[in-house]
Amino acid sequence: MENTRKESIKRLGDLIKEVKVAMLTTIDWGVLRSRPMQTQDVDFDGALWFFTSSETHKTEEIEKDRRVNVSYSAPDSNTYVSVTGTAEIVSDRAKIEELWNPVYKAWFPKGLDDPNLVLLKVTVEQAEYWDSPSSTIVQITGLVKALVTGESADNIGEHGKVQL
Amino acid sequence: MENTRKESIKRLGDLIKEVKVAMLTTIDWGVLRSRPMQTQDVDFDGALWFFTSSETHKTEEIEKDRRVNVSYSAPDSNTYVSVTGTAEIVSDRAKIEELWNPVYKAWFPKGLDDPNLVLLKVTVEQAEYWDSPSSTIVQITGLVKALVTGESADNIGEHGKVQL
Repeated sequence: MENTRKESIKRLGDLIKEVKVAMLTTIDWGVLRSRPMQTQDVDFDGALWFFTSSETHKTEEIEKDRRVNVSYSAPDSNTYVSVTGTAEIVSDRAKIEELWNPVYKAWFPKGLDDPNLVLLKVTVEQAEYWDSPSSTIVQITGLVKALVTGESADNIGEHGKVQL
Repeated sequence: MENTRKESIKRLGDLIKEVKVAMLTTIDWGVLRSRPMQTQDVDFDGALWFFTSSETHKTEEIEKDRRVNVSYSAPDSNTYVSVTGTAEIVSDRAKIEELWNPVYKAWFPKGLDDPNLVLLKVTVEQAEYWDSPSSTIVQITGLVKALVTGESADNIGEHGKVQL
């Protein structure tokens, strides 16, 4: 079981590390909204981390309703990942400093001196992915077919579900 | 007002027509799940259409809760779109035949003879987009910054919100 969890985490980490921008969907006053989020360049261990500002609308949304989806789309490799999880705002300075990288100054010019700089942590509960070794139309076909039929998709790309 | 709506529809249509696969997020027993959906090659008029099977899990989800988000990610052009809408299953044969294209046989081998072939219609209520003329890191930066700050992002790419 522990091994399976480790393998799931590794598989998911491998799938998402190539996708630089994810779409984060939240529930906002009863409707679903999504927005692009820059993926952090850290080893995936079961939680996703994003830098954000405590003054954004999405932090309010998350305080009202913690349920989120993070989706990763890599059209070039036909990889699509759905992550279901629970979000929270983390303002722990030690964690912020641990994950901080000067490259994020582009988004947060004040860097670690920005009092509004916080982390958005998504604890992953479940993930599904549609993966394909090549980008032919047949492969895309297979991916969608796997989705539609729920079949195991060994010969038409891969659709997997991992529970963390 | 009518002109603004027309312009919004045209703008949104232009943004999403290049993205072949969207991520559809639904509420499934209280949690958010997403999956890739093949975008239909039709002029956008305020509703998004997808072919699906009436036997899939997502059609059940939509029957329970019609609120959805459709997100479009085009990393190559730094375009990200969030569409908030209401989904319904349309089994009207005339509409299915109107939107049918033999290329979809790859997904639905029985084609129009498939009794489970239905349409998933998303009536768009609101959309937001993050668009950028080039794909440099500075542009990505700008997009995320526009999101974070809520500023108009004239010089750092574009973040727009359209109400349909």
